[in-house]
Amino acid sequence: MPAVPLTLEGSSVLHQMMRFRWPAWKALAQADRDARLAEAESTLGAMTESAVYSLIGHKGDLMFVHFRKNFEELGQAETALARLGLGEFLEPTTSYLSVVELGLYDSTLKLYTALAERGIEPHTPQWNQEVEIQLARQRQTMASRLWPSIPDRKYICFYPMDRRRGESQNWYQVPMAERQRMMHEHGMIGRRYGDEVKQIITGSIGFDDWEWGVDLFAEDPLVFKKLIYEMRFDEVSAVYALFGTFYVGLRLGSTGLADWLKV
Amino acid sequence: MPAVPLTLEGSSVLHQMMRFRWPAWKALAQADRDARLAEAESTLGAMTESAVYSLIGHKGDLMFVHFRKNFEELGQAETALARLGLGEFLEPTTSYLSVVELGLYDSTLKLYTALAERGIEPHTPQWNQEVEIQLARQRQTMASRLWPSIPDRKYICFYPMDRRRGESQNWYQVPMAERQRMMHEHGMIGRRYGDEVKQIITGSIGFDDWEWGVDLFAEDPLVFKKLIYEMRFDEVSAVYALFGTFYVGLRLGSTGLADWLKV
Amino acid sequence: MPAVPLTLEGSSVLHQMMRFRWPAWKALAQADRDARLAEAESTLGAMTESAVYSLIGHKGDLMFVHFRKNFEELGQAETALARLGLGEFLEPTTSYLSVVELGLYDSTLKLYTALAERGIEPHTPQWNQEVEIQLARQRQTMASRLWPSIPDRKYICFYPMDRRRGESQNWYQVPMAERQRMMHEHGMIGRRYGDEVKQIITGSIGFDDWEWGVDLFAEDPLVFKKLIYEMRFDEVSAVYALFGTFYVGLRLGSTGLADWLKV
Amino acid sequence: MPAVPLTLEGSSVLHQMMRFRWPAWKALAQADRDARLAEAESTLGAMTESAVYSLIGHKGDLMFVHFRKNFEELGQAETALARLGLGEFLEPTTSYLSVVELGLYDSTLKLYTALAERGIEPHTPQWNQEVEIQLARQRQTMASRLWPSIPDRKYICFYPMDRRRGESQNWYQVPMAERQRMMHEHGMIGRRYGDEVKQIITGSIGFDDWEWGVDLFAEDPLVFKKLIYEMRFDEVSAVYALFGTFYVGLRLGSTGLADWLKV
Amino acid sequence: MPAVPLTLEGSSVLHQMMRFRWPAWKALAQADRDARLAEAESTLGAMTESAVYSLIGHKGDLMFVHFRKNFEELGQAETALARLGLGEFLEPTTSYLSVVELGLYDSTLKLYTALAERGIEPHTPQWNQEVEIQLARQRQTMASRLWPSIPDRKYICFYPMDRRRGESQNWYQVPMAERQRMMHEHGMIGRRYGDEVKQIITGSIGFDDWEWGVDLFAEDPLVFKKLIYEMRFDEVSAVYALFGTFYVGLRLGSTGLADWLKV
Repeated sequence: MPAVPLTLEGSSVLHQMMRFRWPAWKALAQADRDARLAEAESTLGAMTESAVYSLIGHKGDLMFVHFRKNFEELGQAETALARLGLGEFLEPTTSYLSVVELGLYDSTLKLYTALAERGIEPHTPQWNQEVEIQLARQRQTMASRLWPSIPDRKYICFYPMDRRRGESQNWYQVPMAERQRMMHEHGMIGRRYGDEVKQIITGSIGFDDWEWGVDLFAEDPLVFKKLIYEMRFDEVSAVYALFGTFYVGLRLGSTGLADWLKV
Repeated sequence: MPAVPLTLEGSSVLHQMMRFRWPAWKALAQADRDARLAEAESTLGAMTESAVYSLIGHKGDLMFVHFRKNFEELGQAETALARLGLGEFLEPTTSYLSVVELGLYDSTLKLYTALAERGIEPHTPQWNQEVEIQLARQRQTMASRLWPSIPDRKYICFYPMDRRRGESQNWYQVPMAERQRMMHEHGMIGRRYGDEVKQIITGSIGFDDWEWGVDLFAEDPLVFKKLIYEMRFDEVSAVYALFGTFYVGLRLGSTGLADWLKV
Repeated sequence: MPAVPLTLEGSSVLHQMMRFRWPAWKALAQADRDARLAEAESTLGAMTESAVYSLIGHKGDLMFVHFRKNFEELGQAETALARLGLGEFLEPTTSYLSVVELGLYDSTLKLYTALAERGIEPHTPQWNQEVEIQLARQRQTMASRLWPSIPDRKYICFYPMDRRRGESQNWYQVPMAERQRMMHEHGMIGRRYGDEVKQIITGSIGFDDWEWGVDLFAEDPLVFKKLIYEMRFDEVSAVYALFGTFYVGLRLGSTGLADWLKV
Repeated sequence: MPAVPLTLEGSSVLHQMMRFRWPAWKALAQADRDARLAEAESTLGAMTESAVYSLIGHKGDLMFVHFRKNFEELGQAETALARLGLGEFLEPTTSYLSVVELGLYDSTLKLYTALAERGIEPHTPQWNQEVEIQLARQRQTMASRLWPSIPDRKYICFYPMDRRRGESQNWYQVPMAERQRMMHEHGMIGRRYGDEVKQIITGSIGFDDWEWGVDLFAEDPLVFKKLIYEMRFDEVSAVYALFGTFYVGLRLGSTGLADWLKV
Repeated sequence: MPAVPLTLEGSSVLHQMMRFRWPAWKALAQADRDARLAEAESTLGAMTESAVYSLIGHKGDLMFVHFRKNFEELGQAETALARLGLGEFLEPTTSYLSVVELGLYDSTLKLYTALAERGIEPHTPQWNQEVEIQLARQRQTMASRLWPSIPDRKYICFYPMDRRRGESQNWYQVPMAERQRMMHEHGMIGRRYGDEVKQIITGSIGFDDWEWGVDLFAEDPLVFKKLIYEMRFDEVSAVYALFGTFYVGLRLGSTGLADWLKV
């Protein structure tokens, strides 16, 4: 049985963390600031699959989150921001590149078991065909989760993560069925928080420096702590999760940028 | 028995470490400096739940500590500082975002044991209700510790920390009762220093890059060293504590900023 | 049997990641920008074994990849870029120096076994001569892979990597035959992706901070993720691979730089 | 028996590593440079418990070492330097905050053993009193080592260090008597170098990012290497010592700064 | 038998890695550039025991390597460069401070064994005297290796390294005789490359952040990779070597700087 679980991929996603150059902005004439703001609002207003957040703390002042059809469109969004009159006040501090990913541990295990029972060898044409049929079916069922709009909640929490590959504890050497069981238990916790937190998982193997990115959206940020703290004790997180930097932001709505940029 | 201990959350807290641009400040005319200072004193004077410290060493020149009702108000405090005429002389070097947290290991263990004896399953409606009743009761009893004012001591020591998740030593896989015992012994040491050091623990899982932040307040900074050194030998710290960067500051009282900014 | 596998070396390769100083560029007069662009296009146009990519995210705005005959020519390419009128808008963020390397685990194992059977001692003149003959033969057969042109695909993925030298898991202490077996299985995965991804491995022991660099070229970037994710489960990667930073870029064709530099 | 050894604390110490902005300094008129130098010499001349070193290498151009009565005076020294006309040419690269510490492993073990034999329980009033008497006595005997002047040697070597808290090798879980034995053997090596190297140990738990700082002073810097290399093989260093960054400087005497600042 | 091997020390060595400020340099008038170049050539020309290399990649544009009699002279060389008219275009990115070191594992083991057989105790006056006689003798024999001139080869490769002090694999706890055996085998590999690569080992315990620095000099840089790759499999490197950053440069001969600085 192959070790790698099937996945489905959807939107291409870029997080851009930016420091805002307040002193230079304040040094502008009001009319100049107004013009740059108007241009930014117009450009951002047309980016219906982008959202802007004010970050709390020194990791950045603003975070732009872009969901797009592909990486090329992400590159265009990035360049469009850089070309704005507001662009020269935005210094990138960090960023994250990934694609929406649905990990299919449950159905992968079922499918691989069924194919094995039917005597179909991995990576044979027939095996490949069966896998493709399964993926196509799920791609359709899960279209709205693969190509989500950005949840309209007041707070965002973003962080990247890895599965541990330690010398004695190594996720990538755990048998598929055990991984499936741990991921299932992990998902059960998330489900209990489903009303309060909307979660989007993106995969970034081959794209950025961690394996996955996690975006949480909620009206009350305390639930981020409760959810992640509880999960930290479940087996897959306790033993195998490594976490990167955490970013917490407040969504700037349609007039939010104007308010935020006031001097 | 669930592995995660109950917690209570209170004030939202932001630490801002700033480098001060002395050369640019000295280049201003005295009147300009006076005006900016007056504005800063007025704004900071109105922030009754904020305190300013002069840091010792290169990690920053000033540290602003804000206690607020929620993250939105922390964001407003941050923006208010950035908009000050003094703001352009303050370069953020780092920051820390967290909420006051009371970990309830003792009462969690008692409650979970009692619920188990009564045959109430975790996460059932009845279980949830019993937990909520318990939390509500303690939230009331502990209100002053959840929403503290900033202790008025001459020195502050701030540092973030994690519980270790090593390949063989992993806090998140230790049974609840053992964790409770270790935390209890840990608390006993703190209690012996209670007169000399005021301690505020904040939780930052999901908010910042470490799991907890620790603020110590004292008249004599030597007690920071004595307390932390002694604790380093107790089991929960010796085996499971990982420490981040340490910041030591002197509180700038009502006229302190004016003195500090003199050229 | 010596532990080190034979290798063949070809092109010298330099990756240059650059941040572009947009504000300063926008501040130029259009004619000045045009002149600098024309000069850059002319210089880059003559560098037939160099390619330019726009990077996605904060790790850089542009990535220049140079394949050359030797390090001296790489140095000249680097200096030529620095001297361009465009050069002062390009701030190096990082770089990577390596040479195209073909690792010959399969044929090394065969050759060393054969030499051992013939009683030829390692590092004797006869042994050296037999090795040289073998290398010379393969150098000729594999010339096009040793001195490749840069694959003309829309996307590039570059990352450096190491083989783990842990306290208990240490690639450099694994017997040759086991390493050969693991590398062979690893190669089998790559072969299944051969149509979709073109891969160039460069060696950087002694040249840069990781042991190898990997360049992947594809029309669809999702295949980077699929390939690397699948490989992460094979033994040599799961246990022995350590990965550095990942860079993803879009190739700027002949008019691409002009489009990208528009303000 | 409590695990923490008794310590005595003396002078508060701040190391400030600074990069010097040569181009800006050279751009000044000679008279301006002269005035700033004169002011700096006057201020530094009055700081009898501070010393200035020229560092070798990129970690800094100058290192200021301040010994003071308490942290408040260290903060004043720091601010005084920042306010100098020379201050705007000094960019802090790093710093270290600590207090002179004498670790009393030998006498702690004796005292704790004696108290145990007398049946006096740790942390009881009687126990506390006996400890205080012992500390007061040693504080007097060792006053000159607690409040040292800065040794007047040509070279300084400064580095911070930790005791390892690994998953299997953990200093803070080693029994007191074993720690005492290892520290004693460690001290024997130092004693053999006593004529050539003057050593001052400062403690920084709770103050800075490592647990201790070590200052070595000598006429010949080669002895730094000999001493530290030999110590690296003794048990307490081989197994339990983790080292930070090393700084080596040459003392600038009374006319040294003027010479160093010449253009 | 003492655990520390005897060493001999020679030249003091400073590596300075510098970024060159091309835009500012290009902005100078040609006559100004000429004057600064002439001054630099004159100063560097007189530094007969210094060499300049152009580095490949972002780690620096130029590397200055100074061999001197002592650290004081290194400091003077550093200051002399900073004072040059060219100095303000050179931004230090990193540096390395060390002294030429010959590790005497073979003769140490012989001497210590002989002294032990004669019943002479370590660190007694007689023992010290015998050691001093041995060192003095070898210091004379090896004078040209202790005080080498910089090998005149086209390429340099510099990197720092440590011996591992892991929790289970710890060089500093390996018995002397085993260390001697491993170092001897290690040296045998180097000897096979002796014609192609000239190697200088410097010790930096107590001086910089790694324990040793390695300089390799060759006409063909590929040999750096071959040598270091082969060594990576020998026991002392595979298990106990930790490597820092690698720097590769091309020597700028007498007219090299002028060529390199052309705009």
